[in-house]
Amino acid sequence: MTNAFPPNQQFRLAARPLGMPRNEDWLFHEEAVPEPAEGAIVVKVLYLSLDPAMRGWMNEGKSYIRPVAIGEVMRAGGLGVVVASRSPRFAVGDVVAGGTGVQRYWSGPADDKTAAFTRIDPRIAPPTAWLNALGMPGMTAFFGLREVGQPKPGETVVVSGAAGAVGMTVGQVARKMGCRVVGIAGGEEKCRFVVEQLGFDACIDYKAGSVHAGLKEHCPQGVDVYFDNVGGDILDTVLTHINMKARIVICGAISQYNTTSQVKGPANYLALLVNRARMEGMVVFDYAPRYAEGVATLAGWMQDGSLKSVEYVVEGFERFPEALRMLFEGRNLGKMVLKVAEA
Amino acid sequence: MTNAFPPNQQFRLAARPLGMPRNEDWLFHEEAVPEPAEGAIVVKVLYLSLDPAMRGWMNEGKSYIRPVAIGEVMRAGGLGVVVASRSPRFAVGDVVAGGTGVQRYWSGPADDKTAAFTRIDPRIAPPTAWLNALGMPGMTAFFGLREVGQPKPGETVVVSGAAGAVGMTVGQVARKMGCRVVGIAGGEEKCRFVVEQLGFDACIDYKAGSVHAGLKEHCPQGVDVYFDNVGGDILDTVLTHINMKARIVICGAISQYNTTSQVKGPANYLALLVNRARMEGMVVFDYAPRYAEGVATLAGWMQDGSLKSVEYVVEGFERFPEALRMLFEGRNLGKMVLKVAEA
Repeated sequence: MTNAFPPNQQFRLAARPLGMPRNEDWLFHEEAVPEPAEGAIVVKVLYLSLDPAMRGWMNEGKSYIRPVAIGEVMRAGGLGVVVASRSPRFAVGDVVAGGTGVQRYWSGPADDKTAAFTRIDPRIAPPTAWLNALGMPGMTAFFGLREVGQPKPGETVVVSGAAGAVGMTVGQVARKMGCRVVGIAGGEEKCRFVVEQLGFDACIDYKAGSVHAGLKEHCPQGVDVYFDNVGGDILDTVLTHINMKARIVICGAISQYNTTSQVKGPANYLALLVNRARMEGMVVFDYAPRYAEGVATLAGWMQDGSLKSVEYVVEGFERFPEALRMLFEGRNLGKMVLKVAEA
Repeated sequence: MTNAFPPNQQFRLAARPLGMPRNEDWLFHEEAVPEPAEGAIVVKVLYLSLDPAMRGWMNEGKSYIRPVAIGEVMRAGGLGVVVASRSPRFAVGDVVAGGTGVQRYWSGPADDKTAAFTRIDPRIAPPTAWLNALGMPGMTAFFGLREVGQPKPGETVVVSGAAGAVGMTVGQVARKMGCRVVGIAGGEEKCRFVVEQLGFDACIDYKAGSVHAGLKEHCPQGVDVYFDNVGGDILDTVLTHINMKARIVICGAISQYNTTSQVKGPANYLALLVNRARMEGMVVFDYAPRYAEGVATLAGWMQDGSLKSVEYVVEGFERFPEALRMLFEGRNLGKMVLKVAEA
């Protein structure tokens, strides 16, 4: 029995990369899309979410989620449309978000726990926003900032990776909470974007000059909350500017993900002692029971025009390996997504 | 006008040390003890407290307390007896603890805010215990563990510098809180002391073998609370063993205080992210309003025999520079104190 679908194409993990993932670390694989069994659906992937965390999933070893196995379809969040359904949960034509993996078609039980599909409402926001402000990056920003960073009105919030998916929402939410918001980003264009389009109070271009001098200028009252997406030297520099009882949210460390030497630990961590400050890690999945709350709040702000969800779209499924490298090179302004197909 | 006292002797800071403090970094100074003015007292110092934190006070630059100035009497906690008083606050013969500095006689207003003398009751515990379990190290351990570490019964608490002043009380208090307690210390004698005398469940000798293997063996359920007094490689190794929602109390980093290269930051700090754990600094002075509560609790345990305060006494005021180096070399078993005079 054949079906109506063209062959599924997939990027499977061929080898665990050393440093930056190369084309040879991927296996491009084609296979037929199975006819859905009772209770199953087929989702045609429209967009894939490219996230810094993906680099960690490619490594061996214990982490907050099991590594992608060699030969397995690369894990990724995605957004697609249901093109076949033998489940009452989803109808053909439903737009869904979930763990599709890096492939053109996802198929399996509609209630698959790993994919964890949810129906999204494209009238509330454009589809790509569901991979950004209304998706994992937005949830990460919203809960990470509010629950771990706990900023109070009038405090100064600094966020690195400010023009990236998580950073841009962190800054906008912090502004809404009445904070002074200073971004750190690489390049003049990103900094201008963050200040002019997103309403940050200031943005420090770490490629142009001294982050230290930038913090001194733009955080005259010191730093109360630092939301860190990058790690490395920038984390170390911010540590020298924190206030008493400051909170550092460790959300990621993109500067360290492709290093082939040892990760650079924060040499200035004793600033935590001096300032009775804390550094705390967060993983968005812990807030899954509260995503509805996060989506409702952020969607409301998007609809009243006070929150922007900006995506950087690379077109073409076959460009996945290149697009992932572009992410780690910081080429994206906004959330990096890969456009796989038209709806 | 002369008085009854022999000349006061002091160690003043002569130079800011590079690495381990040398004899030449001190100025040995003699001056007359002034006759007390109205409202003033003279305290004859009996014991001085030698603490790792002293090394930080010798450095220039912003910290939780201002640096000791060049030419100034070295800051130190001490215990002494009031030998002259023109204040109703203290009577001749009172035993007091406070910031005496490294000198034989302290003199000044009885209500001096920096010295902050408090009368102690030598019937409750031997005098040196007031510089240890009932003094700053005890308060550091008690509040740092309970308020920042927040261990729950049945959890595993690891403490480094386990045979030192703070570590020994941390472990004993954690045992009282129903935790499994594993120390880390340097040398077989210290480890035996900690287990056999203080009742720790186990102690890892970092000089004898792999801390990693020791943690694997003695913390089969992982580490819930790590109370860090040492920093460096040991902090990094413990980070690879922490549990979800672990709490790391940053109390000190004695391994790094005399380094002439950059402080070693914890390269494994991303374990905080993976485990949604936190690392938080503490400074005992923040708990000053609650010292009475801490002293009462710890004194009660000392009196019922369930808490030990062990001191390592070096005799002779003139040995201060050497004794301070011994502290950084980890020669002390228990709290390092310098005996200055007989009562």
